[in-house]
Formats: sequence, structure tokens, C-alpha cells
Amino acid sequence: MTVDEAGEFGLVARLVARLGPAGAAVLGPGDDAAVVPAPDGRVVATTDLLVEGGHFRRDWSSAYDIGRKAVAQNLADIAAMGAVPTGLLVGLGCPADTALAWVDELTDGLRDEAAEAGAAVVGGDVVRSAGVLLAVTALGDLQGRAPVTRSGARPGDVLAVCGRLGWAAAGLAVLGRGFRSPGRVVAAHRRPEPPYPQGPRAAMEGATAMIDVSDGLVQDVGHLAAASAVSIGLRRAGLEVPQVLVDVGAALGVDPYDWLLTGGDDHALVATFGGGVPDGWLVIGGVSAGEGVTVDGQPYGAGGHDHFG
Amino acid sequence: MTVDEAGEFGLVARLVARLGPAGAAVLGPGDDAAVVPAPDGRVVATTDLLVEGGHFRRDWSSAYDIGRKAVAQNLADIAAMGAVPTGLLVGLGCPADTALAWVDELTDGLRDEAAEAGAAVVGGDVVRSAGVLLAVTALGDLQGRAPVTRSGARPGDVLAVCGRLGWAAAGLAVLGRGFRSPGRVVAAHRRPEPPYPQGPRAAMEGATAMIDVSDGLVQDVGHLAAASAVSIGLRRAGLEVPQVLVDVGAALGVDPYDWLLTGGDDHALVATFGGGVPDGWLVIGGVSAGEGVTVDGQPYGAGGHDHFG
Repeated sequence: MTVDEAGEFGLVARLVARLGPAGAAVLGPGDDAAVVPAPDGRVVATTDLLVEGGHFRRDWSSAYDIGRKAVAQNLADIAAMGAVPTGLLVGLGCPADTALAWVDELTDGLRDEAAEAGAAVVGGDVVRSAGVLLAVTALGDLQGRAPVTRSGARPGDVLAVCGRLGWAAAGLAVLGRGFRSPGRVVAAHRRPEPPYPQGPRAAMEGATAMIDVSDGLVQDVGHLAAASAVSIGLRRAGLEVPQVLVDVGAALGVDPYDWLLTGGDDHALVATFGGGVPDGWLVIGGVSAGEGVTVDGQPYGAGGHDHFG
Repeated sequence: MTVDEAGEFGLVARLVARLGPAGAAVLGPGDDAAVVPAPDGRVVATTDLLVEGGHFRRDWSSAYDIGRKAVAQNLADIAAMGAVPTGLLVGLGCPADTALAWVDELTDGLRDEAAEAGAAVVGGDVVRSAGVLLAVTALGDLQGRAPVTRSGARPGDVLAVCGRLGWAAAGLAVLGRGFRSPGRVVAAHRRPEPPYPQGPRAAMEGATAMIDVSDGLVQDVGHLAAASAVSIGLRRAGLEVPQVLVDVGAALGVDPYDWLLTGGDDHALVATFGGGVPDGWLVIGGVSAGEGVTVDGQPYGAGGHDHFG
């Protein structure tokens, strides 16, 4: 059965049933709008648009993984503000002949990744489109804290990271050469694992600036440096290079540091701290007066990902 | 100059500058997420996905009007909950060769419609896509009131409408026949004018259920009837048929009541009230025990708009 045969309202009813309870929502799917708690008196909100071909390929990722990834990249933005997620809205566009089974799996992925972070899908929209589209909006709560912006890094701060770097890029490189293994890096491309609770934790422990690594470490640290009007120096020796990236790099003829420094889509959190860093965070550099990003004291040439480059 | 030549970050910087101040936002565009006031301790949230070809045509609507319409249909959902808008997030997908001038006009339309309702665009995303896509999320505040859902209509309530009915459908019919006039109905198709302040006002004056007419009066009133488990009777004699719809109907051989009863996209508000109705609202029917929607006591056959029909 296809989405066309189900019809708009049949499809919505099916998705809503499959998503299950709307978590902490005051009012979940099915009305003109959802109502979500905002106990802090402010709401953190971010949106991402994902397009088949540009952000995912249906032949490289399962519907389930596409759903998980779409939610993960949005919830990583909530975590990077130091907030906890409170709800998600999902706009889904798909061709009329899309199998309902495919949409079911996508829905399961959306639901499971939201649940992983303690949130739920509370509303959305479905439309017909030429390729599959996902528009995900995530909402979060600051629990009374100031948001951790990109602009608070100060000379003397240390730079630290929590989460994987370079794994998704290595997985993409593997898939791009027509391989499907090592499974761990391919899985990392298909399904990022952002360290959600570490965002609020970093905020509680004094992070001065924070961002999630969606476009590549050098590029995203560059956003911190620009917004904070400081220079940030990365040290290669501070980065941990997993053996699997060394192995894949050797097989494909790629320096694994390229993946760590420029690979996006893992959604690690990178933050600056004036004092010590929380457990689980790795110091990889420091902040000084000036501008731009250096790696081992030198400007780094290669860029990250530009969606219109 | 095209969006491709501007690059992702150049495009974002241009959009943010053009959007101007982020209204009441605590934190506007440029970070991982926006932060918006939610003084009520809850946030109303709704999202819509608009796809070129399905929801708009670049040869039938200007970029400016597409922007205004995209925002209007979302803010109408906020109003239909009885809430006031607090912020908007906009995901924009467009082909690499899209002229920056076109995006500028779209941005102006988004900004101006938001301002019309007292809100502002506080964040978003840009991606490359085959056709133009807009993913709009609107946030709102209930000001301490209960949300006005679809499920509160009770037998004995009256049904009332505020705003235009059938105008956008007549305009679409005119365009579909290759005409461009009368300008008033064509403009209504291109740019709806939802009566935003009347949503909170209806809530304050005791509306028991409310919805905005996006898919057609009969169909949307059907959603109220189904959610409230009641029957709702519409009376043709209660509807005001504007002379311009009579004239266009005569020219095109269409009964103007068809447009009033089944035409979508005007985003009028329709609500049920246990007592009197606020100024500016027109009583067009009533609520009784039972199910479904009748027009002058008879079931109404023609449907509204189904995005996957």
C-alpha cells in the first residue's frame, strides 16, 4: 500500500498511532497546533530541512536510520544550547507511490531517536513531493540557565569535545567507494549518536560557548571563534584517533585527521570552558586573542561542508 | 547573482540582515537554536511544509506573496488555538541557480507577514533542492488561557466564522483558466488575510472549539464535528456571498457556494460558541447531537482538499 492510497488523513492517523504518546506535551498531534511545556518561560527552537539526495540516500540508509538521523541532528542543536529537548515537529514530504511500510519505518526512527533523548514528536505535516523531504523542528527547555551561545569564548579558555569526530565522514567515504564495511563507520554515517545529556551538563559546569559539530570540527570551531571574536587553536595531539579510522584511512588512502578535522554529521559537542572540563570531555585546544582557527599553530586550509558550495 | 554563488553562509547572512530585528526573541538567528519567550509556561507550536507545484507556482505568485502566504497559513494555526504568535522558524530549500533577488523578495514577504501578526522570523535553515521548498514553524503563547481545541463543541453551541471564504478558490479558478482578473480574487489566492487577533479574542469570549479554514469550510468543520463527537449544521442563508464571487462564478459557470463551502487557503477562523459571538463573527450554523456535517439539513457531497487524494 502506498501513501497515495492511504490519503492524507489516513496517513496522518497512521503516523500518529505509530508515534505513540506525545510525551510531556499538553496537547499532541491532531489539532491546529501542539502545546508543549516551557517551564523556564523561554523556549529553545531550531529547525532543519533534509532533502533526499543532498542529505540522505534511500539506497544508502534505511528509512529507520533516516528518521533517527533527522531527529538527532536537530536535538544536537538543542543540546548545544545547554537545553533539554521538550518536543519535535516533523514535516514529511514524499512521492505519492512511497510504500507505507517505508513511512512506518521512518516514523519508528523518528520516535526512537526522540525517546533516546527523552522527547517525543508532538505534531507535524505531510505533503506530496517529488523526493523525500524532512523538515524537523526541535524545542527545548533551558531549566533556568542562560543559553550557551557561540559568542562566549574568552582568551584563556580551553576547548574541549565530547562525542565522535570523523566517524560519519569515514563511513560516507566507505559507501562512496561502493563498500559496506567496516560496519561501525557505515553505521556512524547512517545514525549519529550525539551525547545529548552532555549539553546541559556542560552548561551546568560553566561552558562559556558551545556548538555541535555538524559541518566539520575546523569549520564549526571557526563559528565559535568568529562569534566570540577570538582565535582558537586546535592541537592534533589532543585528538584521539580511533583505530578503525586509522585502518579505513590506510585502506582508502586518506589521512584520518582529515576526517576528524573536517568531517561533519557526527554531532559531537565542542565547547569552551574557563576552568576544568566535565568528565567525558577531551581538551583539544585553547582560546587566545586574535581571530580564526589554527591547527598546531598553522591555519588549516581544507574547509567543511557548504550546502551551496 | 544566484544562491550558489553566494554560498550557504553568504546566503544566511543576507537573509538574516534582510529579516531585521528578531522581535521579542531572547536570541535570534545565528546560533545553534533561537530562544523565544514563553511567558505562559507552555508554547504553542505548528509546522507546515510547502512544495513548489503542490502549494504554489512561481509563475502564478511572486516570491513576496509566496513568503507572505507561507507565514500566514502557519500563523492562522496559532490563532486558531487562541494564541498570539511569538516567533517563526523557516527552512528554505531552493535550486542552486535561484536568483538572490527572488530569495530577497521571499524574505521580505516572510518578514512582512510575520510583522503583520506581531511576530518575527527568529531562525531557520537553507538547503539546496530541486524545487523551492518552505518549511515554516510558528510558535505562540496562550497568555494563560486554555488552548481552544477542535474537540470542545457541544450541542446547542452556535457555529460562527470570521474572515473570507471562497476567495482564494475563486482566484485559483481564475488563474487556472488563464485569466488574471478580477484582481481582488487573484490577490486573495496569492495572499490570504487571516484575522489573527480574532483567535485570541474568540478564546477570551468563550469559544468552545476552533479551527482555521485551510482545506474548505465543510471539511474543516467536519474536523470540529469529528473531534467533538457532535453534528454540525451549516446554513447557506447564513453565509454572505460577496458580489465579486457571484460575478466570477457567473463568468466561469461555477456556483459560488461551492467556493464558500469547499474552497481552502483563505484561513478564515471558524469556531463554536455557547453564548453570543464576538463582533466581526458571522453565525453560519449550529451544533447538535449526532455526527458529521450537514448543509441546510442535508449531507454535503463534495470534499475539500486532500494532499494525497
